Amino acid sequence: MQSQPLTHFKIEGAEKIYIKGKIHKNIRVPFRKITLSNKKTISIYDPTGVYSDPKVKLDIKKGLPDIRSSWTKSRSGNVTQMHYASKGIITPEIEYAAIRENYDPKILCKEVAQGIAIIPANINHVELEPMVIGKNFLTKINSNIGNSAVSSSISLEIEKMLWSIRWGADTVMDLSTGANIHETREAIIRNSPVPIGTVPIYQALEKAGGDIADLTWEIYRDTLIEQAKQGVDYFTVHAGVLRKYIPYAMKRKTGIVSRGGAILAKWCQIHKEENFCYTHFEDICDILKQYDVAFSLGDGLRPGSIADANDPAQFAELKTLGELAKTAWKHDVQTMIEGPGHVPINKIKENMDKQLKLCHGAPFYTLGPLVTDIGAGYDHITSTIGAAIIGSMGTAMLCYVTPKEHLGLPDKNDVKEGIIAHKIAAHAADLSKGHPMAIAHDNAMSDARFAFRWDDQFKLCLDPEKARASRNAAFSSKTKCESDHCSMCGPNFCSMKISQMIKK
Amino acid sequence: MQSQPLTHFKIEGAEKIYIKGKIHKNIRVPFRKITLSNKKTISIYDPTGVYSDPKVKLDIKKGLPDIRSSWTKSRSGNVTQMHYASKGIITPEIEYAAIRENYDPKILCKEVAQGIAIIPANINHVELEPMVIGKNFLTKINSNIGNSAVSSSISLEIEKMLWSIRWGADTVMDLSTGANIHETREAIIRNSPVPIGTVPIYQALEKAGGDIADLTWEIYRDTLIEQAKQGVDYFTVHAGVLRKYIPYAMKRKTGIVSRGGAILAKWCQIHKEENFCYTHFEDICDILKQYDVAFSLGDGLRPGSIADANDPAQFAELKTLGELAKTAWKHDVQTMIEGPGHVPINKIKENMDKQLKLCHGAPFYTLGPLVTDIGAGYDHITSTIGAAIIGSMGTAMLCYVTPKEHLGLPDKNDVKEGIIAHKIAAHAADLSKGHPMAIAHDNAMSDARFAFRWDDQFKLCLDPEKARASRNAAFSSKTKCESDHCSMCGPNFCSMKISQMIKK
Repeated sequence: MQSQPLTHFKIEGAEKIYIKGKIHKNIRVPFRKITLSNKKTISIYDPTGVYSDPKVKLDIKKGLPDIRSSWTKSRSGNVTQMHYASKGIITPEIEYAAIRENYDPKILCKEVAQGIAIIPANINHVELEPMVIGKNFLTKINSNIGNSAVSSSISLEIEKMLWSIRWGADTVMDLSTGANIHETREAIIRNSPVPIGTVPIYQALEKAGGDIADLTWEIYRDTLIEQAKQGVDYFTVHAGVLRKYIPYAMKRKTGIVSRGGAILAKWCQIHKEENFCYTHFEDICDILKQYDVAFSLGDGLRPGSIADANDPAQFAELKTLGELAKTAWKHDVQTMIEGPGHVPINKIKENMDKQLKLCHGAPFYTLGPLVTDIGAGYDHITSTIGAAIIGSMGTAMLCYVTPKEHLGLPDKNDVKEGIIAHKIAAHAADLSKGHPMAIAHDNAMSDARFAFRWDDQFKLCLDPEKARASRNAAFSSKTKCESDHCSMCGPNFCSMKISQMIKK
Repeated sequence: MQSQPLTHFKIEGAEKIYIKGKIHKNIRVPFRKITLSNKKTISIYDPTGVYSDPKVKLDIKKGLPDIRSSWTKSRSGNVTQMHYASKGIITPEIEYAAIRENYDPKILCKEVAQGIAIIPANINHVELEPMVIGKNFLTKINSNIGNSAVSSSISLEIEKMLWSIRWGADTVMDLSTGANIHETREAIIRNSPVPIGTVPIYQALEKAGGDIADLTWEIYRDTLIEQAKQGVDYFTVHAGVLRKYIPYAMKRKTGIVSRGGAILAKWCQIHKEENFCYTHFEDICDILKQYDVAFSLGDGLRPGSIADANDPAQFAELKTLGELAKTAWKHDVQTMIEGPGHVPINKIKENMDKQLKLCHGAPFYTLGPLVTDIGAGYDHITSTIGAAIIGSMGTAMLCYVTPKEHLGLPDKNDVKEGIIAHKIAAHAADLSKGHPMAIAHDNAMSDARFAFRWDDQFKLCLDPEKARASRNAAFSSKTKCESDHCSMCGPNFCSMKISQMIKK
C-alpha cells in the first residue's frame, strides 16, 4: 500500500474542476471531471478536497487553505445553518452543498430549516468544503479513525484520515481515546476538507483519569467547548441512554455495545442519577449553536447481535432521540440520529420505519447494520449488505465498518477496504432511489463495457488501479491483452462481442 | 495462499461427525461439530466431504470413495429423484439431504415430487454427498471454475474446485471452454463430493470447431449424453432464448451477456431457425431422466447492466422458462431456474415475485444480482448485496461472483473471496428467513463474543485463520493480547466489559 500523506492524490482519469456560485459569486464548488475516449465527459461528486487539485500547494503543518472565514466572520449568536435557513437565508454553505448535488439551493434551504437535511459546518472549521446529509441527497459514508490506549500515533491517524478521504469518505470521525487527543484532533481538523465528528465523552473520560465514577457534567461541558472551538463539525451525544432503559439492555445477549452508551450507563448506575447528557441537553444545545456543531444523537443502546435487534432497549432509546431532536430544533441545532448495529435483513425495514416516524425526518446515520454475527474478518461485507438495504430505504449516511471490526483497530488497508465496500453500498442505495447522478455514472460504465473501452471502464470505477491490475493479471505472459474480450471467456465466447455481431 | 490439493483440509475447531439414517441404515450424513471452551457443542452443515475427514485416505487419481453405487445399482428407466418422490419413495438421497438440514424426509419427499426442492444427483456421480436446493432449506452457493482458451490447466482447475469446497461451495460449475474439456471434467467429478454443473453448449461449440454456424442439435445431443454419462449433476440449458425475443435484447445498453445465450441467439440468426434447445426440449428431457441430471434453465437474456434490468427481454424469457419447467416436470426431470444479473435494489423484489408466479415454485438460482455496474475489482461485494436481498426473499441458490468479474478469470484468492462473500449472503438470508440452524450459529458466536471467549469466536466464524491473524495483528509487540478487550477500544473503553460490570 502506498503512503501519500504529503502529496496530491493520484486518481486515474480524474480532473479537478470547479463550478462557481450564482448567489455567492465567490464560492467554487469542486467536481471530478472524467473525460472518456469518445470525448464525452461526466462530472461526479468529489469529496477529496484540494488533495486532488495539483494547483494547490499542500503543507500538512499549515493545514488546508481557509475558504470559509470570509463567509462566517460577520456571524454571531446562533450561527447554525438551520438558524439562517429558517429565516430564508441561503448561506454560502447551502448554495455550495446544493451545487455539489445538482440541487436547487432554495429547496435545500427549506429542508435545512425543516431539519430533514443538515450541513455539518462548524464556523471554526474554515477549511471545510460544505456538504449535505439527508435522504434526498447522495448517500454519504463516514470513516472512523482514532487511536486507542493500545495502539497508534498522531501521524498514523493523519495518514488514515487522508487515506479515508482519498478513497471517498464524506465525513471522518476521530474516535481517539488514548494519548494526545487534543493534538491529534487539531491536526485532523486543520487538514480536513470533510466534516469531522467526535464522541466527546471519550476525551471527558480521559480527563477524569479513565475512571467513570469521576466523570462530571462540568468536565463534559468543558470538553464540548474545547472541541467546538477547535472546529469539530458534529458530536455524537448519547443523551438517549436513560436510567430506566438500562435494565432492558441487561437482558440482552450482548448488553451494551456502544462505548459511549456503556460509559454513561455505568455512570448512571454509580451515581444513581439520570444521564447528564439528558438532564443538561438544553445546555448542550446552547454550546452547539454558538459554533454550529451538529448533533449526531448516539444510539448507545444499539443491538450488538442478531439476537438483540429491534428490542425494547433499542426502540425505547430511539423514541427518546426523536424527542431530543425536537428540543435541538427548538434551538435551531442541526441534528441527525444514529442507528444500528446488528440487524437481520428481515428486521431492517422496521428500523427505518420507526426512525422516520419517531424522529420527524431528522437524517438517519447507521453503523451498517451488520446482517450476521459470524462474519469476523469480513465484517465490512456483513455491514455493506445491511447498509445498502437501509440506504435504499432512505438512510442518509452510512458509517463504515472495516474487516477488523470485532477484532482490533484497522490498519490503512482495512480502512480502504471498508470505505470502498461502503461506497458501493451508498451508490447502490442512490441507484435504488433513482438519483440521476448515480444512474448517469452506471450508464457511462456500461456503455464503456459494451464498447470494450477498457481505459474508460477503469476511470469510471471506484478503484481504477485495482481494476486495471486485475485485468492485466488475468492474462498470462503468452497471451496478448486484446481489447475486444477478456480472459473470462476468451475470444470465441465473449457474449458482448457476439451481441455486437448479432446487432450488425 | 496455501495450496492443498492432496491433503486434508485443516479447519480450525472442526471435527467431522456422521449421523446415521433411520430409513436407510447404511447412510452416514456428515456434519461439522464444533466444541466450545464451555463444553457446549454446535453441529453445522458441512459441504466439505471427506476432505475434512482425516480417517479417509485421499487419492486424487483414484477419486473419492464410492458411496452411492449400492443405492443406485437397481435403478433403471426414469431414475430421477422426482420420479421416485412422486411415487412416495424416500430414496437414500432424500433421507440424506433431509438429515443434513434437520428436516423431515417425508416432507422433503413431497417437495421433491412437487418440484419446489431439487436434489441434483446424477446416478453416475457415485462420489456425491446428496444435498437439497429449495427455498425452505439453507441457502446454497455455487462456485464457478473452468479454463478458457486464454488461461488455466487441469491441475489448476482441480485445485480451484478443492479450494471452492474448502471454503464452503455447495455446488461447483465447470465452465471450461478451452482445451481438455472432457478430461478436466472427469477429474473434477471423480473428486467432488458436491454436485457439479456444466453448460454443455460450451463443449458443443468446441466440437463444432468454435464456429457457431457449424453447431447442430446432433452435436449438442451427443455432448449432453457424454456429460450425463460422466456424472454431471445439472446442466444449464438456455432453452428460453427464443428468436422472437432477440430484437428486445438488441435494444439494450449491454445486449446479451450470457455466453450460452449469445451463442444460441447468434445460431438462430445464422440459421433463421428456432433455438434447438427449445425445439428439442423434450428430447433433452428424455436424456436427462435416464441419468437424473437436473435442469438449470439458463437465463440467456439476463440483464448485464442496471439500465437493462427487468426489461421485456428478461421477463419474456422468464415466462418461457416457467413453461419449460412444467414440461420438464411432465418427465419428472428436476428443474431450477436461473436469474440475473445486474439489478438495482429497488427492482430486485419484482424478480423474485415474477419468478414465483411464472415458474410454479421451481427453485430460483441467481447470479448476484449485482446492484451497481461500477464495482469492477470489488464485484464480489456488489453481488453479495443483491444476493443477500434476493436470498432473503426465497432464492434457493446464489451463484458466486469474484472480485475479477468483468475483468478476467479468477485466481485462487479471488475464488476464496467470492465464496466467503456469498456464504455471508446465504447465511444472512437464512437468518432473515428464520432458519433455526443459522440462528443457533449466530447466537453461539455472540455468546462467545460477550464472554470474551476468543478461540470460540474464531472457531465459529467463516475464516478462523484470518480472524485470529487480524486480532493478533492489531496488537503491537509491546502490548499483550489480553483476553477481556481488544485493540479497538483498549481496556478502559470496552463496552462489553463495562456492560458486564453493570450486570454484576
